[in-house]
Amino acid sequence: MDSSFKYSEVRVFAPASVANVSCGFDVMGFALGAPGDEIVVRSTDSKDVTIAAITGDEGVLPAKAEKNTASVAVRALLDHLNIDAGIEIEVHKQMPLGSGLGSSAASSAGAVLAANHMLGSPLSRNELLPFAAEGERVACGTAHYDNVGPSLLGGFVFIRSSDPADIFNLPFPEKLHAAVVHPQIEIKTEDTRKILRKDISLEQAVIQWGNVGGLVAGFMNKDLDLISRSMKDVIIEPVRSVLIPGYDSVKEAALNAGAVGAGIAGSGPSIFALTADRDTAEAVLKAMKSALDNVGLPSDEYLSAINTKGAEVIDVKE
Amino acid sequence: MDSSFKYSEVRVFAPASVANVSCGFDVMGFALGAPGDEIVVRSTDSKDVTIAAITGDEGVLPAKAEKNTASVAVRALLDHLNIDAGIEIEVHKQMPLGSGLGSSAASSAGAVLAANHMLGSPLSRNELLPFAAEGERVACGTAHYDNVGPSLLGGFVFIRSSDPADIFNLPFPEKLHAAVVHPQIEIKTEDTRKILRKDISLEQAVIQWGNVGGLVAGFMNKDLDLISRSMKDVIIEPVRSVLIPGYDSVKEAALNAGAVGAGIAGSGPSIFALTADRDTAEAVLKAMKSALDNVGLPSDEYLSAINTKGAEVIDVKE
Repeated sequence: MDSSFKYSEVRVFAPASVANVSCGFDVMGFALGAPGDEIVVRSTDSKDVTIAAITGDEGVLPAKAEKNTASVAVRALLDHLNIDAGIEIEVHKQMPLGSGLGSSAASSAGAVLAANHMLGSPLSRNELLPFAAEGERVACGTAHYDNVGPSLLGGFVFIRSSDPADIFNLPFPEKLHAAVVHPQIEIKTEDTRKILRKDISLEQAVIQWGNVGGLVAGFMNKDLDLISRSMKDVIIEPVRSVLIPGYDSVKEAALNAGAVGAGIAGSGPSIFALTADRDTAEAVLKAMKSALDNVGLPSDEYLSAINTKGAEVIDVKE
Repeated sequence: MDSSFKYSEVRVFAPASVANVSCGFDVMGFALGAPGDEIVVRSTDSKDVTIAAITGDEGVLPAKAEKNTASVAVRALLDHLNIDAGIEIEVHKQMPLGSGLGSSAASSAGAVLAANHMLGSPLSRNELLPFAAEGERVACGTAHYDNVGPSLLGGFVFIRSSDPADIFNLPFPEKLHAAVVHPQIEIKTEDTRKILRKDISLEQAVIQWGNVGGLVAGFMNKDLDLISRSMKDVIIEPVRSVLIPGYDSVKEAALNAGAVGAGIAGSGPSIFALTADRDTAEAVLKAMKSALDNVGLPSDEYLSAINTKGAEVIDVKE
């Protein structure tokens, strides 16, 4: 084993995440307790970063190192650290692809955390973000942080700036839960970005940044009413929601069942709701599922507290 | 005196304010210690709201009740309260008009606070905001809150929504000071709104709302570095600053002298800077003034801590 490595193998769980959180397009996201990916990194005798195995992707993800989000992220990290050693990666997908739940981000976040841990943790989680974002660039075309941020750091994450990266956690009400339904249709992030208008009205933008500021203040003050009033997206949701059959009825069902707010998870098609506690999350999830059933769409459901740890090492081998 | 009145006369000081605070166009503002207006309201035997006197305006402000921001605001308040009594108002301007320091807002905020006090304070300051905003509508064409909010409430104010009004104070670093230079050219808010583009790019909007969220978090955490990094306006400042001769050099001088951030006060032409303490504010003000001198523009200067009280009653007569 190359002397750079403290461990020969590291296994990491990296959580799914919900980007945007209604008004916060490209600047906000949070981590889910479940689902998530497992990533294994292992030292090799070569000088390459390679993909050794991918499971759970139904053969969809690229195994070529230059195309896979996990290997691209780890390659960027090793280059930055000037480490000339070999790593092979296993990607065990345990969540749907193209669901809006940050699947590619979980893989790249998990992979850089695992590689960093294998190297004795030379970088902090915050310092790892740009390398995970390089993985996102391969998957979605842009190095955005609204999924890798939550996947790596956990909790609610605010992205003041992507270039240079200026990213921090926001506090949130401790009992907050997320209910998510994933209608089984696939939407590619790249396509959902294409349908967005390049220009928006200043008037709408002012409404949106009023809500963004309100949402930040709401989380910092743990003020559920303010969070609820601020979870309104006048720019992205009206455009993207047309791609999701039954969106309006699912959102309405969530709010009627007591959700603090609801919206499109990332670029969709998953729909998320935040609730004040677990009991409400259960009622909200049931209502959302029932609304989707009425549209005739099968769905997966997820219910969890907010994940506060982010990606975590679950096993190592010396 | 009409039985509705607790006092026959009330005198109020209402502070000037700085709207926008760089990135927070239409959603943020703060109150200055000085300058400000004095407003006197007095009960009369008529049923009308009238302007009894205006001083310090060089004859510019309308004395007609339907056109004056103070009387329009008081009229709206009395109508809301169903009070059929007469009030006359004296407006003593003690700050420049058309300076970007919320002159009209100070008058309407001061007038509604004074009238409310004369009536035994049936409404809270927050409840008074919409009536003060009606005064702004006469002065600037829209009922916006980014100056009347600070003038009435004091401190830093965030406007999540103007319709319906959802407005709250943000905490801020206690020693924060403001330095303001007012180049002696007049710019009308109405004109400065006209030159803004109606459409902006989504990309720029995302940068802006990242900064808005960062600024809110910066104030709430009293984090001067984050406030500084967030005080960037990529949308409005590039357009409006061309109307202010020497703007770039004044801003640069402020930042070089240690300002946390600097920008256009409201719609200008005043330029404000925030500083960590009073000493820095003095150095920053000197540097800004010197930069304006180089352009050959005479200016007024103001230096104060953030006004935490908002408009205040300074005298009453039974």
